[in-house]
Amino acid sequence: MSRPRPLVPRGDPADSVRVVGEFGVISRVLARSGTAAAAEVGPGDDAAVLRAPDQRVVVTTDVLVEGRHFRRDWSSAEDVGHKAAAANLADVAAMGATTTALVVGLACPPDTPTSWLEGVATGLADECAPMGAAVVGGDTVAAAADSAGVVLSVTALGDLGGRAPVLRSGARPGDVVALAGRLGWSAAGLAVLRRGFASPLAVVTAHRRPTPPYAAGPAAADAGATAMCDVSDGLVADAGHLARDSGVLIDLDRAALEQACLEPVGPLQQVGSALGVDPMAWVLSGGEDHALLATFPRKAILPEGWVPIGTVRPGKRGAGVRVNGEAAEEALRAVGAERGGHVHFG
Amino acid sequence: MSRPRPLVPRGDPADSVRVVGEFGVISRVLARSGTAAAAEVGPGDDAAVLRAPDQRVVVTTDVLVEGRHFRRDWSSAEDVGHKAAAANLADVAAMGATTTALVVGLACPPDTPTSWLEGVATGLADECAPMGAAVVGGDTVAAAADSAGVVLSVTALGDLGGRAPVLRSGARPGDVVALAGRLGWSAAGLAVLRRGFASPLAVVTAHRRPTPPYAAGPAAADAGATAMCDVSDGLVADAGHLARDSGVLIDLDRAALEQACLEPVGPLQQVGSALGVDPMAWVLSGGEDHALLATFPRKAILPEGWVPIGTVRPGKRGAGVRVNGEAAEEALRAVGAERGGHVHFG
Repeated sequence: MSRPRPLVPRGDPADSVRVVGEFGVISRVLARSGTAAAAEVGPGDDAAVLRAPDQRVVVTTDVLVEGRHFRRDWSSAEDVGHKAAAANLADVAAMGATTTALVVGLACPPDTPTSWLEGVATGLADECAPMGAAVVGGDTVAAAADSAGVVLSVTALGDLGGRAPVLRSGARPGDVVALAGRLGWSAAGLAVLRRGFASPLAVVTAHRRPTPPYAAGPAAADAGATAMCDVSDGLVADAGHLARDSGVLIDLDRAALEQACLEPVGPLQQVGSALGVDPMAWVLSGGEDHALLATFPRKAILPEGWVPIGTVRPGKRGAGVRVNGEAAEEALRAVGAERGGHVHFG
Repeated sequence: MSRPRPLVPRGDPADSVRVVGEFGVISRVLARSGTAAAAEVGPGDDAAVLRAPDQRVVVTTDVLVEGRHFRRDWSSAEDVGHKAAAANLADVAAMGATTTALVVGLACPPDTPTSWLEGVATGLADECAPMGAAVVGGDTVAAAADSAGVVLSVTALGDLGGRAPVLRSGARPGDVVALAGRLGWSAAGLAVLRRGFASPLAVVTAHRRPTPPYAAGPAAADAGATAMCDVSDGLVADAGHLARDSGVLIDLDRAALEQACLEPVGPLQQVGSALGVDPMAWVLSGGEDHALLATFPRKAILPEGWVPIGTVRPGKRGAGVRVNGEAAEEALRAVGAERGGHVHFG
């Protein structure tokens, strides 16, 4: 993995983590965190205490590494906060739950400006606020002086509100495969940024601040979804996880996917034309939009925002994913997306 | 902060994170994680689901940075896992709760041996297992190729079992200040390691694998503790947090502290003599043993493992900490511990 281009200047040395100190950073950052509706004890003690009326708690964690998941010259501090929160909130949604709180671990070079950390805190808070969630705890430490960048580790807690969690392992032959949210926009935005451009803004913004369809997760659970996951590694890769864990084959319908993801004609085609890329490559293999992928019984009524994109067929474990009955690897190769995995820089 | 000495060789390049890949690492690591008694859904899905019969959940997070909180030539991978877990389990105990599960975020250089990560996972699992807890989720990512080291971010969830959480803000004038667990052992062990020695093993082991008195936390809550915290930044510093948050003055009794921490004569005096350090410096300012510090009503019966070390007196917010009525800063200076804060390398 090559080192990204030099980062933007790191700001006023008098306002760095080194000078302000860890305790100063924590209090500044938490002052921006808002209040979690579920918090009985908020930040500032040894631990937070959250109400969990459901008597169960959903928990997930994601790590973002500077130079790998974000670049400070491509994304603002607020963008990084939004993105880090979104990755976790989408995981909670993919269980059929709603996020109640975040805790944040942050290791940063001593010369990181505290204003940058405040921006991250603002982004985290703003992404959580619509669902009543907030950061309830954290640990900010200075990394080694020669460390390559910021490491941001976010853990989200969520509440199922009485729903059964929707696992990856429940898909059954005959189920409908459905999608909520966008695919390929973040990957297209990344492709634009890598060429040194900053437009079209729609895809660049999608890369900087994904907008997962959080409410679609609990709605899918209520509608009887048999399996669900978020698309963070790319559609083919994540459909492969569902197929493996459920012991089925997932057959994606290319026409339905095109209709769901490429109609009406929009920025994916525009960027594809400009860069000589088949936009279906981004749809099939781009991660980080955090769409939700689920399977529903054939007679289920898909909730708002969900569209059918395929069918579950019988298959042994490892049978994998097909596109119009053809091995997904072939479909990926045909559109120039060589790997099934997640498109990231590195 | 100076760069630590060169780390030990990073092992067989064919067994590195770069080669095995993130998914391979995750599955290898989780295979060592044991099973959390509270887990309804364990690792491997978008999120884990934990039972929370108390209808509340305690949550805390701590970040450990290589070269700052541990060194691979001073601590084994298992040691690092134990230490990372202990820091979090002690925070949960300091609320009066018991840890039910951990989630782990890990950013590591691509050449990190997977066997090292497996060792960390084993250490985490072994530290949690006695209380029925385990790692239920995680995210392992390769950091930038030139990153300085491993960043390990651990989040612990805990259950209060019907107890009211014990905050830092509840100490009242007249309360007894009490201690459970050891002070200064980790700092003495660190001092030994910094001089290039590896004995006495008792303090070196205390630095590598702290042994916080987890059960003393819930026991203190049951006995009516009015305030509690874990000692991670040093006794004077953490007593200062209690004093500030409770709006009181904490007066430590030096004779009681000596009796609690330096009798019978043991390795602290032995190391102090060898290095020309007053062992009381480590007792007053050494962190990372994760002892528990609490205040109890004067008539409370201290549970097993708790010993009185001082008295809560009236004080305005910020009144701080005294030792035998003298400002703690003076006491620190007298024993050669210039700073009230936590002793760490860096």
